[in-house]
Amino acid sequence: MEKAFENAQKAGKDGEIPVCAAVFDPLRREIVSVAVNRTENDSDPTAHAEILAIREACKKRNAPRLPDCDMYVTLEPCPMCAAAVSFARIRRLYFGAYSPKTGAVEHGCRLYDSPTRLYVPEVYGGFGEKRAEQLLKTFFETLRTP
Amino acid sequence: MEKAFENAQKAGKDGEIPVCAAVFDPLRREIVSVAVNRTENDSDPTAHAEILAIREACKKRNAPRLPDCDMYVTLEPCPMCAAAVSFARIRRLYFGAYSPKTGAVEHGCRLYDSPTRLYVPEVYGGFGEKRAEQLLKTFFETLRTP
Repeated sequence: MEKAFENAQKAGKDGEIPVCAAVFDPLRREIVSVAVNRTENDSDPTAHAEILAIREACKKRNAPRLPDCDMYVTLEPCPMCAAAVSFARIRRLYFGAYSPKTGAVEHGCRLYDSPTRLYVPEVYGGFGEKRAEQLLKTFFETLRTP
Repeated sequence: MEKAFENAQKAGKDGEIPVCAAVFDPLRREIVSVAVNRTENDSDPTAHAEILAIREACKKRNAPRLPDCDMYVTLEPCPMCAAAVSFARIRRLYFGAYSPKTGAVEHGCRLYDSPTRLYVPEVYGGFGEKRAEQLLKTFFETLRTP
């Protein structure tokens, strides 16, 4: 989670909404992949941190699913990313700030409570919540300051 | 849509669930991108047809949003893809078969009706529905035949 925070801060400096996700293998105690939001820099609306981290981890493992891995992300995932976490069979999802506007885990469509949900990870929200919130708040304040 | 059906059929022969998506620019009357499901072949759980078609179209246009484009897809999008269509600001979404188990437009979490939805495209479902359903049915029957 510490690494996720550090990287999210860097992403903010690159003009991206500062969100970072890491895929972690708890048995090997190894970070498999770390990615930040790249939608603007890559001109790719699907390039959220979680999607990029999952794609990189699957590439490294040469497998389309990561049942032995957990994900740490600084913000509550949106519907796209929450579904990707499910498709990747991520074991545990730890996230930082809650996102009432864009989140899809504890807010919005609450994807994992949906009647047609497929696989649901264990979810732990609010890890380093204040720090994650502050990171986003500072980013948007700086953006709006001429 | 015709091109989407042809490509979906080819994807089925490659061992992928036969789904194809195309991004179309109605003003220029031009297909911007066409992609099939590649999750197994690419070891990438996010490599659904819609995600790949959006990524390719955005790359070609060097833009993270496609407000002048429509999407044609043979199956009702899942939550991940429905959210990606929204992030990409796709104007109109045309889809073939309805998917009560995995769909997130007319089924499941009904993403575009969610209280926190961001952008909602115009949606037209059931285009070539029977053909799209038959394509999937044949694929799964073949898969289960020893």
